[in-house]
Amino acid sequence: MKPLLALATLLLIAAAPTPSDIEASAPAAAWKAIAPEDLLAFETPRGRFVLQLAPDFAPAHGAAVRALVRRGAFAGGAIVRVQDNYVVQWAVREGTAPDGAAALPAEYERPLAGLALTPLPGPDAYGDKAGFVGGWPVASDTTAGTVWLQHCYGMVGVGRGNAPDTGDGSELYAVIGHAPRHLDRNMAMVGRLVAGIEQLSSLPRGSEALGFYKTPGERLTITGARLVADMPAAERPKFAVMDTASPTFAAYVTARANRSDAFFVRPAGHVDACNVRVPIKIVP
Amino acid sequence: MKPLLALATLLLIAAAPTPSDIEASAPAAAWKAIAPEDLLAFETPRGRFVLQLAPDFAPAHGAAVRALVRRGAFAGGAIVRVQDNYVVQWAVREGTAPDGAAALPAEYERPLAGLALTPLPGPDAYGDKAGFVGGWPVASDTTAGTVWLQHCYGMVGVGRGNAPDTGDGSELYAVIGHAPRHLDRNMAMVGRLVAGIEQLSSLPRGSEALGFYKTPGERLTITGARLVADMPAAERPKFAVMDTASPTFAAYVTARANRSDAFFVRPAGHVDACNVRVPIKIVP
Repeated sequence: MKPLLALATLLLIAAAPTPSDIEASAPAAAWKAIAPEDLLAFETPRGRFVLQLAPDFAPAHGAAVRALVRRGAFAGGAIVRVQDNYVVQWAVREGTAPDGAAALPAEYERPLAGLALTPLPGPDAYGDKAGFVGGWPVASDTTAGTVWLQHCYGMVGVGRGNAPDTGDGSELYAVIGHAPRHLDRNMAMVGRLVAGIEQLSSLPRGSEALGFYKTPGERLTITGARLVADMPAAERPKFAVMDTASPTFAAYVTARANRSDAFFVRPAGHVDACNVRVPIKIVP
Repeated sequence: MKPLLALATLLLIAAAPTPSDIEASAPAAAWKAIAPEDLLAFETPRGRFVLQLAPDFAPAHGAAVRALVRRGAFAGGAIVRVQDNYVVQWAVREGTAPDGAAALPAEYERPLAGLALTPLPGPDAYGDKAGFVGGWPVASDTTAGTVWLQHCYGMVGVGRGNAPDTGDGSELYAVIGHAPRHLDRNMAMVGRLVAGIEQLSSLPRGSEALGFYKTPGERLTITGARLVADMPAAERPKFAVMDTASPTFAAYVTARANRSDAFFVRPAGHVDACNVRVPIKIVP
């Protein structure tokens, strides 16, 4: 049996690591803790969902959402809309939205200057350069020197009316379907859900146009929301995101594009930014 | 008021039609009825979901699924797995799967010859040529002359073990997240859901590895399944799919890539095949 065992060991060593292998064995240096000031925990009867803000991309909108959470506007709010293969949308308690006097800037894209883009090899179906910035999936117009967050599964944007300056942070949506990339550069994206999305994506779809619920009784109530930084230290949930500028992440992307798990018969050789799924972990 | 009204009419005419406009006004010639032999209706306590087979792409697997439906194997089966941002999987009643004596061919891709590809303008993130064949979203290796169905939201494939010839049609999965294109050319895709996917995508996610349910009690039962062609004529649900070789569809794709709805401030100029969402309608 010895020679066979030796051969098996050799094959095991020779096989390329899978994405899970790379994530599981990533060194501490490959992870970045998410600041508690950028984490918002929303409570519902189904459980908690946690939003990580992306202050590099929509600082004014992120600050508006943070302020609404701090003054208790989301407590008594609800999930008002669930549209299949599109978005889940939630809103503050009625009567607590800002008065609209101070419109927010249209933070739909920003200069690439000052940010380090880790480009994804290969083309992007939307004609731009896809990649990652500070742990976020982005697309970039490298000629114009601009960059924006991609509408990947779990990413969160600010709802608005037809006029671009009508989003005030009182209605937020999370993507629960194939990335609706046509919304890129049309919305202020404030971040992504790092926990609890399965509590939202599994909600019944609304029967009205755009997936709005017909009656208030169908809505899932938001019983409360807090900035994680405002919680007692012992209660704070902690998360870390893989450093998208690290060699570990580069290996992870390569493994996602060239799946070597025993199940696969033909690696794709490519991967889109949303399918990379930047690793995020709960820190015990 | 007259001049103002005239101006409004003019603006309305000048504005590019939206995807919904094009779908709503599509002529009868732009639609193709789906053959009742290619439609399988699955019944559950949550309602019906309907699978359209794609015999041009996986004829042996499609025939195997059709045969399992006809001999009642799915009655008493269940949804066994729901993995967030990935797939819903359902299975025949225990003890009714084929015995494995006759393995099916690996229908993961096929020659392009004999099929008319309507290519999508622009690049595909997976390095192939994306487009449509006979109403289906596909990718093609035009050098090798092969074509395969894309794993878009709602597309249905045949579950298998690690060995490529272990799929027998007794377990099927539907995509309920961002298109997992790394599965393209690794699975036999048999078709897509044309109705009822929202009953499956809103199911609770399973807590075990890969989203399998922990206990049989968590599973949604399939109370029955029938080939629509086997139903009494008056009971048959009827569907039509937009002809992807038609000028109407070409206009639709252009409109999906260049959204002119009042909501959009910046049309993308591009669209991926999964975001095109080939129009499918219920025929009254």
